[in-house]
Amino acid sequence: MIVPGGKAVRLAESLGAMLGESNVINSRDALEPYGKDEGSCPLHLPHLVVKPASLEQVQSVLKEAASAGVPVTPRGRGTGLAGGAVPVRGGMVLSLERMDRIVEVDEANLSVVVEPGVIVQDLHRAVESRGLFYPPDPASLDSCSIGGNIAVNAGGPRAAKYGITRHYVLGVEAVLAGGQAIRHGRKTIKNTTGYSLTHHLIGSEGTLGVITRATLRLVPLPPVRVDLLAPFPEVAAAARAVGRIVRGERVVPAALEFMDQASIRAAATFLEREVPFLDAAAHLLIQLDGKDGDAVLAQSEQVGEICLEEGASDVLVATGSHAQERMWAARRAILEAVKRLSHHSDFLDVAVPLGRIPEFLDRADRAASGAGLSLANWGHAADGNIHVAIHRREQCPGWLEAAGQLTDRIYAAARDLGGVIASEHGIGWLKRKALAASLDPEALALMRRVKQAFDPGGLLNPDKVLP
Amino acid sequence: MIVPGGKAVRLAESLGAMLGESNVINSRDALEPYGKDEGSCPLHLPHLVVKPASLEQVQSVLKEAASAGVPVTPRGRGTGLAGGAVPVRGGMVLSLERMDRIVEVDEANLSVVVEPGVIVQDLHRAVESRGLFYPPDPASLDSCSIGGNIAVNAGGPRAAKYGITRHYVLGVEAVLAGGQAIRHGRKTIKNTTGYSLTHHLIGSEGTLGVITRATLRLVPLPPVRVDLLAPFPEVAAAARAVGRIVRGERVVPAALEFMDQASIRAAATFLEREVPFLDAAAHLLIQLDGKDGDAVLAQSEQVGEICLEEGASDVLVATGSHAQERMWAARRAILEAVKRLSHHSDFLDVAVPLGRIPEFLDRADRAASGAGLSLANWGHAADGNIHVAIHRREQCPGWLEAAGQLTDRIYAAARDLGGVIASEHGIGWLKRKALAASLDPEALALMRRVKQAFDPGGLLNPDKVLP
Repeated sequence: MIVPGGKAVRLAESLGAMLGESNVINSRDALEPYGKDEGSCPLHLPHLVVKPASLEQVQSVLKEAASAGVPVTPRGRGTGLAGGAVPVRGGMVLSLERMDRIVEVDEANLSVVVEPGVIVQDLHRAVESRGLFYPPDPASLDSCSIGGNIAVNAGGPRAAKYGITRHYVLGVEAVLAGGQAIRHGRKTIKNTTGYSLTHHLIGSEGTLGVITRATLRLVPLPPVRVDLLAPFPEVAAAARAVGRIVRGERVVPAALEFMDQASIRAAATFLEREVPFLDAAAHLLIQLDGKDGDAVLAQSEQVGEICLEEGASDVLVATGSHAQERMWAARRAILEAVKRLSHHSDFLDVAVPLGRIPEFLDRADRAASGAGLSLANWGHAADGNIHVAIHRREQCPGWLEAAGQLTDRIYAAARDLGGVIASEHGIGWLKRKALAASLDPEALALMRRVKQAFDPGGLLNPDKVLP
Repeated sequence: MIVPGGKAVRLAESLGAMLGESNVINSRDALEPYGKDEGSCPLHLPHLVVKPASLEQVQSVLKEAASAGVPVTPRGRGTGLAGGAVPVRGGMVLSLERMDRIVEVDEANLSVVVEPGVIVQDLHRAVESRGLFYPPDPASLDSCSIGGNIAVNAGGPRAAKYGITRHYVLGVEAVLAGGQAIRHGRKTIKNTTGYSLTHHLIGSEGTLGVITRATLRLVPLPPVRVDLLAPFPEVAAAARAVGRIVRGERVVPAALEFMDQASIRAAATFLEREVPFLDAAAHLLIQLDGKDGDAVLAQSEQVGEICLEEGASDVLVATGSHAQERMWAARRAILEAVKRLSHHSDFLDVAVPLGRIPEFLDRADRAASGAGLSLANWGHAADGNIHVAIHRREQCPGWLEAAGQLTDRIYAAARDLGGVIASEHGIGWLKRKALAASLDPEALALMRRVKQAFDPGGLLNPDKVLP
């Protein structure tokens, strides 16, 4: 479907009158940043970008778009990796960037009300200054929006202990494709008032509705945090340590991050500074937290001992926030860093059941060797979520095709091992075909009927999620 | 809609041939237990009851029912309180009682695979014997099924710390009204492979599909548990203690149960044994748990101190499982006990934001006094979920109407205070009208379209949930 330019011009005029001209963009240069995200989706320019500032404005914009028959791509801060916010059919980008208020931090009721454009780190700071905690922490937290986090059901390192975005969303206000506002959920953990429209919308990547406000559950901020960094001479030793910590001793770390050598080195190059234990085959970065200082320290000693027994060459301990930030810098930089490894910057986002991680890494490595390609692997070892970047050792003309085939083999490995091809980055546009191979036809048909129930005209974020 | 008896007879014959005659019931006496639940929904006899034993049998049953145009009411163990499993249109009850296998406790991957008819307590025992923990613990756990728990998104005392059923369901296998099997979810916490059909089905009370298998997430069993029982001379003092524990000190108890005097006395009468502190205006029953014994003990001392400072006349401490069971006996008996208070045995199941509990109790009590009726209040003070039983002081002809009006006033109070009218017992048949008053018309219209997407013929658990 091509959107005729004339429609977009008329729409820009009527919406400009409604939202103010500065909030409606249709000049080529200004459109360009809205035609991509942080992943490898090709540029697709929208015909116009609109920036509403209220529920009512979002409703008006969607009504106008529906009556003009123009497709609408909702967008948070554009930090997605799967093309979910890229307007692949042109039409309108509905940017939520101006709806960025933290409406209320409700200490008495352990909750917060936010608009979708709030940056996740700003949310963290606002609640942590009051001793409260919103745990989900995607690596892009300094630039991604809470609306986008809800749209992809974002995770992050703390998911194994604290859960994912879905576990913290108590309710949403959203606008459907026709402009109808719906509300579901209150400031209560328990709620069985009809079908959970809240949970229907979480993870739907802007294809079912545009979230304009969300009520999130908070928990007390754990006052004690200890971080450990353990370098291992081989990946298998790190995997054994993970197994003993999580499954043997049944410790529940706040985070248990895994980085292989390629990831660590890429981060060091990107950060342009010294990163400790650069020659290790793998790092584990482990965070333990809690209310009781002695208990957290005792547990971190236990975890450190296990790492050493399994072959870690050292264990660094960080207890102050400055040292902790330094320890996490390499981990947080990996995503940007591996993009520099080659111009092909697709990151896989698979998850496998916990106990299958070593087998998965082994299969992925063997597949890469067979294809003459290299991998960087990193991720969340306590919840089985592994990110994989495929890169090339040297120039080679057919390598993108080879990378595509390798991707398919890695997805097949994840599925064979009881895992999934998409964990916390969503399906967006890039992974629709891989999704099709992961779903039963009946499940896919049902998802299409759900889409139809929410968006009968098919104008909301078309060509996303469903293949 | 009345199901003609002839249809049911023919269906009983064909299904009897398929499932074995003993698994198809259509004699009046044997049907009767399937015509009610544990709540106040009037008896509605089904025309037949079928008891499939496998996914394939459930598929066949639903296909036959669809082609005969017979409504189907799925049923776990019939312990619901809102009429969700009562066949209000007659037709067929599809009982999952024979599908009661714990298919796999997967220690390595912290998960368990169950059939829907498994009794929740059996699930608890199976995983706890291996040091693992499935936290949701509705009061009926010794008789309710996990399938029913998923269908109503059940909660229980441990929800404030550990979350509700929804937070533990990783995936489901289900059969749609036409007999199509769908599968969604694997043994991973993170999963963004398309719309979460798992979360669409959770809480849908058998109106969207019949769950035939579920994969549940487990966490390590906290090895240390301490229970405290604190009697208070007035409800306001107990409420102050709750506020200081949860909001002031930000302790996260594994359970923080509230019982008013009417509830405690009803439990004592029902149990026919001595219950301590029978004259107290309210009891708090508080459970603290964790991995570190010293930390849990220190926290329980702190919590006990707070209770005493706020006016508790005593604090009993139980650390062994026998003493703990005794301490919980009264709490677990309340539901059955308050049924004996009068033949009208509707339990309200509201939730309000944490900080609004005292205001809610106050409004409910004033409304009851105005109506000349009595209340028993009990529930989960750490997550705002309060159960209310309305009962009568003496014989009075119009009292059921008065109780209905009082219910409406209590629902209005919950809504005014930012709460919900249904928290963990579902909507079923009894609360459909109250649900209608709680939802925006647009949200309700959308829920109807979702129902249509899953069950276009409208034969699956008709007249439930949606008004």
